[in-house]
Amino acid sequence: MGLLVQKFGGTSVATPERIRHVARRIADRYHGGHRVIVVVSAMGHTTDQLIELARQVTAQPPRRELDMLLSTGEQVSIALVAMALQDMGVPAISLTGSQVGIQTDGVFTRARIRRISTARLHQELDAGRVVVVAGFQGVTESMDITTLGRGGSDTTAVALAAAIQADECEIYTDVDGVYTADPRVVPSARLLPVISYGEMLEMASLGAVVLQPRSVELAAQYGVVIHVRSSFHDREGTRVVAEANLEKAMVVTGVTHDRNVAKIVIIDVPDRPGVAHRLFSELAALGINVDMIVQTAKQQHTTDLLFTVARTDLDQTLAIVRRVASELGTDDVRHDATVGKVSIVGAGMVSNPGVAARMFGALAAEGINIQAISTSEIKVSCLIDEQHLDRAVRAVHDAFGLGAHEAESEAVEASQA
Amino acid sequence: MGLLVQKFGGTSVATPERIRHVARRIADRYHGGHRVIVVVSAMGHTTDQLIELARQVTAQPPRRELDMLLSTGEQVSIALVAMALQDMGVPAISLTGSQVGIQTDGVFTRARIRRISTARLHQELDAGRVVVVAGFQGVTESMDITTLGRGGSDTTAVALAAAIQADECEIYTDVDGVYTADPRVVPSARLLPVISYGEMLEMASLGAVVLQPRSVELAAQYGVVIHVRSSFHDREGTRVVAEANLEKAMVVTGVTHDRNVAKIVIIDVPDRPGVAHRLFSELAALGINVDMIVQTAKQQHTTDLLFTVARTDLDQTLAIVRRVASELGTDDVRHDATVGKVSIVGAGMVSNPGVAARMFGALAAEGINIQAISTSEIKVSCLIDEQHLDRAVRAVHDAFGLGAHEAESEAVEASQA
Repeated sequence: MGLLVQKFGGTSVATPERIRHVARRIADRYHGGHRVIVVVSAMGHTTDQLIELARQVTAQPPRRELDMLLSTGEQVSIALVAMALQDMGVPAISLTGSQVGIQTDGVFTRARIRRISTARLHQELDAGRVVVVAGFQGVTESMDITTLGRGGSDTTAVALAAAIQADECEIYTDVDGVYTADPRVVPSARLLPVISYGEMLEMASLGAVVLQPRSVELAAQYGVVIHVRSSFHDREGTRVVAEANLEKAMVVTGVTHDRNVAKIVIIDVPDRPGVAHRLFSELAALGINVDMIVQTAKQQHTTDLLFTVARTDLDQTLAIVRRVASELGTDDVRHDATVGKVSIVGAGMVSNPGVAARMFGALAAEGINIQAISTSEIKVSCLIDEQHLDRAVRAVHDAFGLGAHEAESEAVEASQA
Repeated sequence: MGLLVQKFGGTSVATPERIRHVARRIADRYHGGHRVIVVVSAMGHTTDQLIELARQVTAQPPRRELDMLLSTGEQVSIALVAMALQDMGVPAISLTGSQVGIQTDGVFTRARIRRISTARLHQELDAGRVVVVAGFQGVTESMDITTLGRGGSDTTAVALAAAIQADECEIYTDVDGVYTADPRVVPSARLLPVISYGEMLEMASLGAVVLQPRSVELAAQYGVVIHVRSSFHDREGTRVVAEANLEKAMVVTGVTHDRNVAKIVIIDVPDRPGVAHRLFSELAALGINVDMIVQTAKQQHTTDLLFTVARTDLDQTLAIVRRVASELGTDDVRHDATVGKVSIVGAGMVSNPGVAARMFGALAAEGINIQAISTSEIKVSCLIDEQHLDRAVRAVHDAFGLGAHEAESEAVEASQA
């Protein structure tokens, strides 16, 4: 007799047939005695189609009206899921973000949840109903409709789970869970039964996009257990929890990679205070996320400044960088959009020296040159030539014995020791 | 410097291009110094497509969820119209039924408006914005989304015009206005510059579907002037007002016809009190609208009972009629779905005896047999064989001198007299 939040993404509700499939999964939980809140996204590519429709009306859709438009996608889904449930004899009711009382700030297209009033939720749950909530959307204090940004339905699900203190927040997706590496690149990659919030957050921001990072932050803040699992079968997926590595003490949990990377180098930047601030605050103002930053003192009074951005932000970034560089007295701005990033993530890293060295060794053994390095307490990222990326991921994955086969033999060795 | 409500139907906003066209019309009014509230329907066939989607999920979509689903259609339209207006430099904001404060009862799929809170409307108008409101929808006191039934956007527009005491409620449509007869049947039919609420109501319920009857009732109740006009050009259409015939004293304003008619006759019904009540209350309970009712005493103690329903309700009606008839001791139930109705409407009829006789004479001269007659203070309807319907409309239209040519020659005669 638990209290569950289940979230289904756009692929899971893309057609009437899939909606009925999703409804059957929900019905199973309901008949199993659980109280269930369901969060759904817009059907299939609805959101993209609505954005395209807006662009046919105006080149620059105003953000408030874009949110008014986009929020209809989830509203269609919740109505249909509630219909499918009722058709199967499960009492169900759909609620928009506004109706469920998800109050946000007024930053249209990427609003943040401020509070959730749970009165209506409890009322419907107490009446024995499955509550089907529109993901991705909320309302401001003055009742204007907002959306939470791409992937915002994950955030809705976790926020609801936190607000009603659910036992678990199940995120149904088209992958089986979180793997030690992308299985398409590393065939021996293993499904992780459990992972910590911190590791998940690094994985998500490093390119293994399974959950919206904000939803993981929120889960960490409120201690919500997220269960990432497949909507196609019943096997358990990956649980994201506060402390994951306690029993198994694995140093490295997974290897991720990211191809959406571009490198920019400004040569001979004057080496004086405020230069980096000047440049990066201009980029931040445009919402451009700067990832790795490496500054190398080359000769007296000047340095080379290397940093990376998403490849999709490259053109916009270059325009600004060239202007700022020129104002700083240099015109030598170089860029490379054929780089990639390979990273190791693991909460155990912090207390295990030599982890980074082992990664560099694995890359060196493959003859792969490292162009830049960035580290945090639980991750090490290396910037390399994109053409070596898959090989790098496999080498690093092997080096830390993360594969299904290696893990087995390690376990055997451990028991023989 | 007036206060206007403008309503655009689904055809007018069917594509991004038409939405921009509509926005230009609104912008003209705005730049002309008017304060404007716009009401829009769902784009093109959106509502039908959403209903079809629901039917793919369940054979019997629950009404609350159907309203949740259908209301998205208008929400898409208002966002796009507001975007198009802003693109043209007109400050505009879209509001859902819920946001604008259109409160209804809880009868899903055919809710009735209870009250409109005008605070947000006035706030936006005072800020110099065009307010684009979703037609067809409202919310209950508990914030559940309702819809007002087919054509409900007309009702939204009139209700808003009443609530904010607008100078005029313009209903843009794909016809030029209200004609003395259907121009496709009677080529000489004339556009009526003005018509009374009562006449419009009879026209609407008699098959000349230009406005949702409920919207006309509401306009009559609050004295809202409705201006029915074309969305394709700028010419004036038909104004629906309290007293239309004062100056011109036309006895008959228009001729309408209706093909969606089926006749049912129950032979030898026992002639005792309560029989009609029994039958018609069962039909009413199913929402089946009974139109003409004629009871003919044939022999002692039994009568024949003739009545008409919409042809689309025939099967459902027959099932009930056969059961009730059998309980009353007769099994002789006949029906005919090849009938049609021709009607004359005119507020001047009441003070002009002989109007009905003139209509019957016109039909007799064409050799058309009248199967049943029903009258009100401002209309006379005759049930005839459907195959004679077009000819009947033309004959009656001629008999009352309603055509463009006749009206002209009458005017000439009058000036010569």
